[in-house]
Amino acid sequence: VRTGVTAIRPHPGNPYTAKVRAAAHVLNGFGKTTGLEQIRELGTLETPILLTNTLNVWKAADGLVEWMLSLNPYIGISTRGTVNPVVGECNDGYLNDIQGRHIGAAGVVEALDTASPHPVVEGNFGGGTGVMSYGFKAGIGSASRRLPEQAGGYTLGVLVQANFGRRHQLTILGKPVGLWLDDWLPPGPSSEPDAPERGSCMIVAATDAPLSSRQLGRLARRAPLGLARTGSVSGPGSGDYVIAFSTSEFLTGEAGPPVRKAAVLADEWVVFGHLIQAIVEATDEAVLNSLVAAQTMRGRDGHTAQALPVDWINSRLAQA
Amino acid sequence: VRTGVTAIRPHPGNPYTAKVRAAAHVLNGFGKTTGLEQIRELGTLETPILLTNTLNVWKAADGLVEWMLSLNPYIGISTRGTVNPVVGECNDGYLNDIQGRHIGAAGVVEALDTASPHPVVEGNFGGGTGVMSYGFKAGIGSASRRLPEQAGGYTLGVLVQANFGRRHQLTILGKPVGLWLDDWLPPGPSSEPDAPERGSCMIVAATDAPLSSRQLGRLARRAPLGLARTGSVSGPGSGDYVIAFSTSEFLTGEAGPPVRKAAVLADEWVVFGHLIQAIVEATDEAVLNSLVAAQTMRGRDGHTAQALPVDWINSRLAQA
Amino acid sequence: VRTGVTAIRPHPGNPYTAKVRAAAHVLNGFGKTTGLEQIRELGTLETPILLTNTLNVWKAADGLVEWMLSLNPYIGISTRGTVNPVVGECNDGYLNDIQGRHIGAAGVVEALDTASPHPVVEGNFGGGTGVMSYGFKAGIGSASRRLPEQAGGYTLGVLVQANFGRRHQLTILGKPVGLWLDDWLPPGPSSEPDAPERGSCMIVAATDAPLSSRQLGRLARRAPLGLARTGSVSGPGSGDYVIAFSTSEFLTGEAGPPVRKAAVLADEWVVFGHLIQAIVEATDEAVLNSLVAAQTMRGRDGHTAQALPVDWINSRLAQA
Amino acid sequence: VRTGVTAIRPHPGNPYTAKVRAAAHVLNGFGKTTGLEQIRELGTLETPILLTNTLNVWKAADGLVEWMLSLNPYIGISTRGTVNPVVGECNDGYLNDIQGRHIGAAGVVEALDTASPHPVVEGNFGGGTGVMSYGFKAGIGSASRRLPEQAGGYTLGVLVQANFGRRHQLTILGKPVGLWLDDWLPPGPSSEPDAPERGSCMIVAATDAPLSSRQLGRLARRAPLGLARTGSVSGPGSGDYVIAFSTSEFLTGEAGPPVRKAAVLADEWVVFGHLIQAIVEATDEAVLNSLVAAQTMRGRDGHTAQALPVDWINSRLAQA
Repeated sequence: VRTGVTAIRPHPGNPYTAKVRAAAHVLNGFGKTTGLEQIRELGTLETPILLTNTLNVWKAADGLVEWMLSLNPYIGISTRGTVNPVVGECNDGYLNDIQGRHIGAAGVVEALDTASPHPVVEGNFGGGTGVMSYGFKAGIGSASRRLPEQAGGYTLGVLVQANFGRRHQLTILGKPVGLWLDDWLPPGPSSEPDAPERGSCMIVAATDAPLSSRQLGRLARRAPLGLARTGSVSGPGSGDYVIAFSTSEFLTGEAGPPVRKAAVLADEWVVFGHLIQAIVEATDEAVLNSLVAAQTMRGRDGHTAQALPVDWINSRLAQA
Repeated sequence: VRTGVTAIRPHPGNPYTAKVRAAAHVLNGFGKTTGLEQIRELGTLETPILLTNTLNVWKAADGLVEWMLSLNPYIGISTRGTVNPVVGECNDGYLNDIQGRHIGAAGVVEALDTASPHPVVEGNFGGGTGVMSYGFKAGIGSASRRLPEQAGGYTLGVLVQANFGRRHQLTILGKPVGLWLDDWLPPGPSSEPDAPERGSCMIVAATDAPLSSRQLGRLARRAPLGLARTGSVSGPGSGDYVIAFSTSEFLTGEAGPPVRKAAVLADEWVVFGHLIQAIVEATDEAVLNSLVAAQTMRGRDGHTAQALPVDWINSRLAQA
Repeated sequence: VRTGVTAIRPHPGNPYTAKVRAAAHVLNGFGKTTGLEQIRELGTLETPILLTNTLNVWKAADGLVEWMLSLNPYIGISTRGTVNPVVGECNDGYLNDIQGRHIGAAGVVEALDTASPHPVVEGNFGGGTGVMSYGFKAGIGSASRRLPEQAGGYTLGVLVQANFGRRHQLTILGKPVGLWLDDWLPPGPSSEPDAPERGSCMIVAATDAPLSSRQLGRLARRAPLGLARTGSVSGPGSGDYVIAFSTSEFLTGEAGPPVRKAAVLADEWVVFGHLIQAIVEATDEAVLNSLVAAQTMRGRDGHTAQALPVDWINSRLAQA
Repeated sequence: VRTGVTAIRPHPGNPYTAKVRAAAHVLNGFGKTTGLEQIRELGTLETPILLTNTLNVWKAADGLVEWMLSLNPYIGISTRGTVNPVVGECNDGYLNDIQGRHIGAAGVVEALDTASPHPVVEGNFGGGTGVMSYGFKAGIGSASRRLPEQAGGYTLGVLVQANFGRRHQLTILGKPVGLWLDDWLPPGPSSEPDAPERGSCMIVAATDAPLSSRQLGRLARRAPLGLARTGSVSGPGSGDYVIAFSTSEFLTGEAGPPVRKAAVLADEWVVFGHLIQAIVEATDEAVLNSLVAAQTMRGRDGHTAQALPVDWINSRLAQA
């Protein structure tokens, strides 16, 4: 198995000359995600976000910088700053030859060039190639919510790279599906009762609602509540990060009028309440989609991750 | 309805001369909780924690300082610092005459003098007098977990002052109890579809596991995952705070040997994984207990909060 | 000596219905400042800021709430939130009978009613009554800078309650004035060589530049560099807090159009660089002004704090 | 000019199996430093710290991971986590062909293999090759303080990669050396009056005092006060980061006894006050040493950075 890269482009244009407002939240910082310092300071995102596996983070970041420099050859020469690549990761060492670090500049460029907002490729692709959740093969998953027109009609989407959870914890629509599966299936690869959860989850949320970086931070802090709905307790063993951005405004970061008129959500009450509901629901659903879309995979040393037995679960859910 | 004060004493002794390690996490800072700055800086708690209603926070803090000064008459005279009262709050303005601010020094002293670890008084008492959750009367709730002996046999307890959630969101053991209740009951006081949740939750966690303040912070950041299990999305409208402390070691904060030998949890893996599981489960259960223990109450202007129809729910749960 | 209260009103109007954008920075959190949680979450300030002494914080906060409720009788009844008082403090226990806690609601109301932006009363008044810095009597101090027209012509003002520093550390315009004074004067009250600095400083910065709360936070993080210019190392013993706000826009926090057009500083480069220079310089100067404006005071138990020997220092500076 | 890498090894042993306690502080997050998320979460450092130039961060991090994997071939196979490289940077684009990104795995390995605690190579070497401060050539600088025996006799050292400040700001021992130089010299490369400072500073502090990660964080937050003594206002344009670690204890991070006895500084008062004084002084001196040790350098496009005219300054200081 050779883990690749999933690229999330904030919009089809040049992300360096059209930066978007952004924020980050760290639920569990035991991870290697890079690029969050500048997001916190400046409240903006100026590159696509890459998701890959743990030991490829810096190769991917380097490839992303390469791609940004070819798109913007003046970076660091005539610009105010240089460029801040944002790369997240999950540790897929059960299936993947993690020390192989098989990523290369070509793979990063391909991921970036083929990244398109619609439709997201879910399942065992890119950064989702080797990940597992709740004892089954997982991958990239996504989901979105559209707010009612009276709440602005905004859209919020969530994409996850899901690599966490032990089988007995899996919860779907409130049902203890993991316990049912424990009864039905032989013990899975992580079912030693005292093995702590060592997985992680990257959560990227995007919205067209005009949120400030402070408001995006408030939103990001709710995404873990969606994780919890799938059964997660955010075990000690690896990093869980949320990055949220808004496409409502594009910023150059370079010289221009000293003051700009920004449209910002004034209603941090009704509309914002809907956005909170949306990020919790979409995070929950994106994790489930990452499982449903993934397929059985055989990895290093004969390790195999089974796809979620969706039909069996559906019939059990129908009975419950 | 006159809201009182609930006092949580970290141990039966003098909290000023036997400080405990502590940490705080803020899920939603739209609240008035006081005393967290010093907890973050010094990693210690040196007073009981009081929970009251919003507009009483400063009266309660002042009463707590009064009580601490009478217990430790040398504070600010011969001690290195003064004293940092910690007070949390929920807004119970639906039932309570919030502007009345009926608390007084006597009530605070009584709450402190009668505070005892066993058993916690749950329901409509003290700081829980006027709170509501998920459209029903709630109050103080608590729950605890004991770790298996092979994971150290430590205990972790959670106490909540629960004042959040709309009826349709209520989730018990994964079941959509709130939706069942919406079908069965007439619309409740907060059932306008677009009214955002405006409630809050104070969560206090205590353990005898020897955690550093950094480790207590890691633990505190998981408590919201327990809130999520009851259906919460942490609406925009009010503050959600977690304070965690460990009773494993008592610190004087005054002169003494320059270096001390502290027992600290080295196993931030298996044992810590159990503690994480414990705080998520105990937070979930403490919220439910705050509902189960509460009783119907009539408040200001004829406002009434009904107790949770426990029998009806139990029979529905038995069918599901 | 009976410490009073200094009130900083963000503008002459009603601060609850005309909230201003705000941020906070904590250099040393070993203090009792209250109200920063909500500032961090919502990015706004909705009351005057009070400065008093340590053990009066909660009485002052309670008085401030009382004043806010009389100004806005609907708070907590028909408003979305309640009200978040912001109160900072210094420990003036050397001069002041700190346990006396002599503040009362009347004093708070008087401080609020008489607070006016021009001119600030510096020296031994209000919250500055009992404070000392660098071994001398200090108090409230203030300073401001006006940006050049080509940088927007904005104004930034800083007010400090200065209660920190040991005599030998005092630095004025880069000159080691404290060492000169040590040569000239007998040992002062805090001149034991190993006594750590136990003082604190409250710094409040206000500007009319249109800064977001994120930008105000960036600015606040530079104020300690101004403290350093006066010789401070921010000793371990007490709290140093910075609160920054912008009067460029007034926010209601209540229902209104869901999206607003906010003017925000786009130039986080040239103009922002001037603002950074301004906050560092004004913080430095405000501390010095707090010393220059203060007068010798006799306090509890015969403790006396001398005024800075300004004439002597001026003649020494003229020679250097 | 080809910027290299400076490596700071926490101790001569294997940093992965002998992790040290660590903390980070961000004064200005407009930078690309990587690896701080895990330091915040776990409070430990498990690799050497590399300092290089901005666009080389990810190549250097990748080389560091390569080196760590060869030293510890079981990482990610049998260990609990993988490995968290820590790399800081300054933008030396005035002298250096920044887009060249001339670093390679060989250079990283050489930097790591030759890193030795005594003596630090100061000046235009490694990550200091192309940096400038206060309009002059700077580089790597270091300084240290030894605490008096009665304060534990601990040592604290600071190493900086100094790349900030405009000439007129330079302050040495409180003297306005920069203004003297402005009078004496023709305008320098950054002397346009309105050009904001765009530089950055990496500060690494090490001590053998037994500090917890919380205490290291308190210490790190004071390092900017030392920067301020050299004249810095921490301009808007680039990142300023502090990383502090303690060599008092080595941690494996792997299975072992669940509880360990850690020696931790109990005296967060006298001894800690000395450590605070030490980090402020050593940061000040390390910046000056980075200037004094650097030599005139010609870089890309004929850009030249002059060495500080030390003799001239010394004679001026002698007069002042």
